[in-house]
Amino acid sequence: MISETWTQIIGLAAGVCTAVSLLPQLIKIIREKRAEQLSLFYLFTLLLGLGLWIAYGFLRTDLPIILTNIASAILNIAVIVLSIRYRKPQS
Amino acid sequence: MISETWTQIIGLAAGVCTAVSLLPQLIKIIREKRAEQLSLFYLFTLLLGLGLWIAYGFLRTDLPIILTNIASAILNIAVIVLSIRYRKPQS
Repeated sequence: MISETWTQIIGLAAGVCTAVSLLPQLIKIIREKRAEQLSLFYLFTLLLGLGLWIAYGFLRTDLPIILTNIASAILNIAVIVLSIRYRKPQS
Repeated sequence: MISETWTQIIGLAAGVCTAVSLLPQLIKIIREKRAEQLSLFYLFTLLLGLGLWIAYGFLRTDLPIILTNIASAILNIAVIVLSIRYRKPQS
């Protein structure tokens, strides 16, 4: 079995990747000021999932799960806010 | 503290949500036979993250993490295959 430290590193790396994977969408929305291609169902389901993962992390007192899913949730909320903002025509 | 069963249920629910959140993209690509709006960087970073979460789940012998991230990885691979297939012009 590998050490606890390596296990934590793998968990953090996993979380960083899943969080980073949200960045292209965020950057695209900011650059194009358009968000029609993103389904709100996808965004809110993902947010619910991330919230549950954070709860799960606390129940397991598992730092990688807590920290990285909080980071993903923050990015996801930013995408949701911008999606809603840019969905309506500019006033 | 809540029971181990409820903790597992929360973990599975979290994983189901994050897996289900991949479905709209998959359905959209199948329906529109178009995938330009999806960045391959996003898809491969997410796949790497899901792979690491699966490894992390095994290191923790944590069923919710293993099962749901395998499901997400399968959906993600389907999106990648279809993205590559529909990116090139129909021959």
